[in-house]
Amino acid sequence: MEESSTTLPKPRKSALARQWGWLRGYNGRVFTEDLVAAIIVTILLVPQSLAYALLAGLPPQVGIYVSIFPLLAYAAFGSSRYLNVGPTAVISLMTAVCIATLPEGTRLVSAAVLAVITGVILLVAGILKAGFLMNFVSRPVVSAYITGAALLIIFSQLKHIFGITASGNTVFALLGDIKSNLPNTNKAALWIGLSAIAILWLIKRYLAYGLVKLHVKSRKAKLIARMTPILVVAIFIGISAYFGLADRSDVRVVGRIPAGLPPLNVPMVSMPEFKALLVPAIVIAIVAFVDSTSTAQELAARARGRIDSNKELLGLGASNVVAGITGGYPINGSMSRSAVNFSAGGQTQIVGLLVAGFMALTAVFLTPILQALPLAVLAALIIVACFSLLDFRSLWRTWVYSRADGITALATFLAVLLLGVQWGVLAGVVLAMALHINSTLQPHMPLVGRFPGTEHYRDAARFNVETNDVVKTLRIDESLYYANARFLEDKVAQVVAESPNMTDLVLMCTAVNRIDASALSSLEEINKRLKSADIRLHFSDMQSRVKERLFRSSFLDRLTGQIFLSQHEAMEELGPEPDWNQLSDHVDIH
Amino acid sequence: MEESSTTLPKPRKSALARQWGWLRGYNGRVFTEDLVAAIIVTILLVPQSLAYALLAGLPPQVGIYVSIFPLLAYAAFGSSRYLNVGPTAVISLMTAVCIATLPEGTRLVSAAVLAVITGVILLVAGILKAGFLMNFVSRPVVSAYITGAALLIIFSQLKHIFGITASGNTVFALLGDIKSNLPNTNKAALWIGLSAIAILWLIKRYLAYGLVKLHVKSRKAKLIARMTPILVVAIFIGISAYFGLADRSDVRVVGRIPAGLPPLNVPMVSMPEFKALLVPAIVIAIVAFVDSTSTAQELAARARGRIDSNKELLGLGASNVVAGITGGYPINGSMSRSAVNFSAGGQTQIVGLLVAGFMALTAVFLTPILQALPLAVLAALIIVACFSLLDFRSLWRTWVYSRADGITALATFLAVLLLGVQWGVLAGVVLAMALHINSTLQPHMPLVGRFPGTEHYRDAARFNVETNDVVKTLRIDESLYYANARFLEDKVAQVVAESPNMTDLVLMCTAVNRIDASALSSLEEINKRLKSADIRLHFSDMQSRVKERLFRSSFLDRLTGQIFLSQHEAMEELGPEPDWNQLSDHVDIH
Repeated sequence: MEESSTTLPKPRKSALARQWGWLRGYNGRVFTEDLVAAIIVTILLVPQSLAYALLAGLPPQVGIYVSIFPLLAYAAFGSSRYLNVGPTAVISLMTAVCIATLPEGTRLVSAAVLAVITGVILLVAGILKAGFLMNFVSRPVVSAYITGAALLIIFSQLKHIFGITASGNTVFALLGDIKSNLPNTNKAALWIGLSAIAILWLIKRYLAYGLVKLHVKSRKAKLIARMTPILVVAIFIGISAYFGLADRSDVRVVGRIPAGLPPLNVPMVSMPEFKALLVPAIVIAIVAFVDSTSTAQELAARARGRIDSNKELLGLGASNVVAGITGGYPINGSMSRSAVNFSAGGQTQIVGLLVAGFMALTAVFLTPILQALPLAVLAALIIVACFSLLDFRSLWRTWVYSRADGITALATFLAVLLLGVQWGVLAGVVLAMALHINSTLQPHMPLVGRFPGTEHYRDAARFNVETNDVVKTLRIDESLYYANARFLEDKVAQVVAESPNMTDLVLMCTAVNRIDASALSSLEEINKRLKSADIRLHFSDMQSRVKERLFRSSFLDRLTGQIFLSQHEAMEELGPEPDWNQLSDHVDIH
Repeated sequence: MEESSTTLPKPRKSALARQWGWLRGYNGRVFTEDLVAAIIVTILLVPQSLAYALLAGLPPQVGIYVSIFPLLAYAAFGSSRYLNVGPTAVISLMTAVCIATLPEGTRLVSAAVLAVITGVILLVAGILKAGFLMNFVSRPVVSAYITGAALLIIFSQLKHIFGITASGNTVFALLGDIKSNLPNTNKAALWIGLSAIAILWLIKRYLAYGLVKLHVKSRKAKLIARMTPILVVAIFIGISAYFGLADRSDVRVVGRIPAGLPPLNVPMVSMPEFKALLVPAIVIAIVAFVDSTSTAQELAARARGRIDSNKELLGLGASNVVAGITGGYPINGSMSRSAVNFSAGGQTQIVGLLVAGFMALTAVFLTPILQALPLAVLAALIIVACFSLLDFRSLWRTWVYSRADGITALATFLAVLLLGVQWGVLAGVVLAMALHINSTLQPHMPLVGRFPGTEHYRDAARFNVETNDVVKTLRIDESLYYANARFLEDKVAQVVAESPNMTDLVLMCTAVNRIDASALSSLEEINKRLKSADIRLHFSDMQSRVKERLFRSSFLDRLTGQIFLSQHEAMEELGPEPDWNQLSDHVDIH
């Protein structure tokens, strides 16, 4: 579980001691806290497990199955103390998209195989210590993806609220299908669905607030408010039983759930089916990992701890494999349940073991009670849960701060809605990298001058600085590498063209962190061209790492000018006295 | 042809005027120079056109065909004055690889379709102004690719020298096949091939040198030496005719070449065949473009001019389409012939038009003479030409200068030899980008201190500088973006853990050219964590562009410390007097 305060260096321990080291301090008090958290998480999990199985297009018991043994696997391998793995909205939707086109009879086994493949991919990534790859999924991509997926999930659940059938992987397909089936709306389902949404929404909105007014402690009030879904479920099971909805053919209910623990077997599919599942499994693995790790990191940071992303891969991988061989489908860490666990005071992964136990009891004893629950209520649970995942504010803030990040977020969001949930992360990752690289292609290269009376040199186009015609300085605000090397050649050529009196050009390399072999060729070329125009080439403020590298080439032998330690030194040496004090006519903007 | 000196700004003219503007100054003197250059290029091109068609696995006349009309297309659209387009070694080999597996009867039409597709890709790229994409092919990749391809071509021609059959797209496949067929070696072919290689090599090596000794001018001597292939061809045609090799079945000769101009027709293939040619065409388009543009740029730079990479795309695209509809195969700019053109004094693309005319005459009148030429002589021409493309020295220099560039070059080289010529550039481009990104993932972040008596702050681990325990400064030598944001969090956590007395942390942002939305989140996180540890966070030397961006977010409202204009200002304000003068115990290494 390897969580140490950020301010303390981690002591080196054996792998086993690190994973289970916290057990030494485990005592009755901690256990009580874990038990309370486990009960609360279970209360939240029971309706969620049914709802997400429904969302995935699988029988309700599958949701319960993946809430038992996978939790044990995560406890054994994962690195977060607070993460609750199991069925989640986004991964359920991705599973639904993947298996929707398969024949009805093969969906269960395909979903299980999907979980095993996803798990194996995560395990291999964990063994290869590829956890750092998650850094390539930027925060704007994650938040846009979650908002887009939540919106898509809300639309996908509308059919249950209206009591109609509809399908589709994109927002247009879904809404089109809903629209054409709208005349078949079932009024009973609609009433149940809308009232469930209204109750859940009002409770979510005002219960905690009301309880605080009644002098309940804020944290407790929030927890109670979060538990209400089970109450809503109970009420509607009562109503459904009273009106005998299970026997009517028009209002769809959960229906008979086989009681008992999940079957244990390795699911098998044919080679072509396996190949068809491979790409979705890769995408699910990426999303599951990024999503879980974000949640785990967030909670670890609140507790001033850290998580190990490679162990996170192992934990998630193992729990997905277990989910697959116990008749389940892909799972990941749940944001809502993990947060509840944390606020309820859960301390260790003992919570996970206890929740697994409670869910096993549910599977064996409680399924007959749940069968009368209308699907519209489950849909209402999903919709209200997804409302809180919508975060348009942060998308807007991202847009305001940086256009490139904003475009990435927007593209991710639109890709989820218009192309389907499986394309969002991919689109975001590729676009973010393309825009990042793009921003380095045409580096900012201002001519700089001296801040009067100081040793500071600033952008002559922005600041009121001293410049002169004979010695010019170009500051390069980027590492020089193959993709922008020719741009530097062009920029220097432009400066030369605009400076008929120039005898010396200084390249100020404060922000140049690297000069690769292609950029070195360009510098050689620039040096050669300047030489034939009788202009000397100098460098200033070069980082020592960069300078050392240049010494390995023969470039410095041919350099017409010098390498100065600082820009000031360069100007002291080169700057012709008479031309100083010619102030640029720009004003200081900061 | 838009070539302007690098030191002069380009005047704005209409597209037509720019393309043909040089015609205004065209006169008899320039024409004479162009005519001489055209004759010399044609003398070099005749044997090359046969040899490269042979290399491509196509009938010899195809090499002549692509040396006629495509040159007119390039003259109309291209931007280089000196580039000679037509059949080349590397593109011929790539064509061979692509069509080798097709049935004998369909190869000709497939090669023509390949040229059309390649041309269309290049035209579309040109219209989209995608010329900047060539910047992503770094110089080490280009030079490693050319060396690898030249080596592969040499191996592929050995079969003609031994007079045996052998095939394969990789070095192992080729050498294995040659080895097993070696017992069938044809002694006559071997003698012809080896003696041709020896003669060509000796002439190449010593003729220019000898001529200079005889007081021939150096440039003229080099040109004469370069013309010798036609002499060797003539000698061996004579020998072959004398011994009647064309009638013997054991020594393979060029054979009957249909006389006349190329047929004009749009080649057609079925949809599956088209699809199979698409990916090779993309790779050929990239290589043709990169290779031609490198050559054109090199020659333009020597003449103090420039080329326009988007027009280069149009010129190459048009000439490939024309090559395809005149019974040809993909072509590009030839390094050897363009260089000869340049040294022979060719001034404009009139050379291209004249060469096209001479090649048309060759096609109509000279083919009967060429048919007795032994294939072993053509193979010898290719082998000796490829020897001069081998450039292991520059690979070694790249390796010494930068390990990342060296690894990229080595991978490109090995990919060409072991996987085949079509994989080299792709492997190089992908690896170069991966290594470039990798170099930004874990930025260099040294703690810095003051150079005694100055306002300069340098890496405390490398220089003998003043530091103190209470105010620490971390210099960030990289732009902060999503992929390295978490690394910064970790680094700061590590500094905090090692600095129990620290009250202020300054992040010196001299080399930070960008802070994206993800990095901003990380800075917020760092600020929050430092605050709870009673450490203030400051910034210094931040570029004004970066600072302006931060003002758009609410980060500065929550920042516990300040943003200082310079690091010196920060230390003047924060630095506690008593702890100064505690010199770090490292020595100055520069």
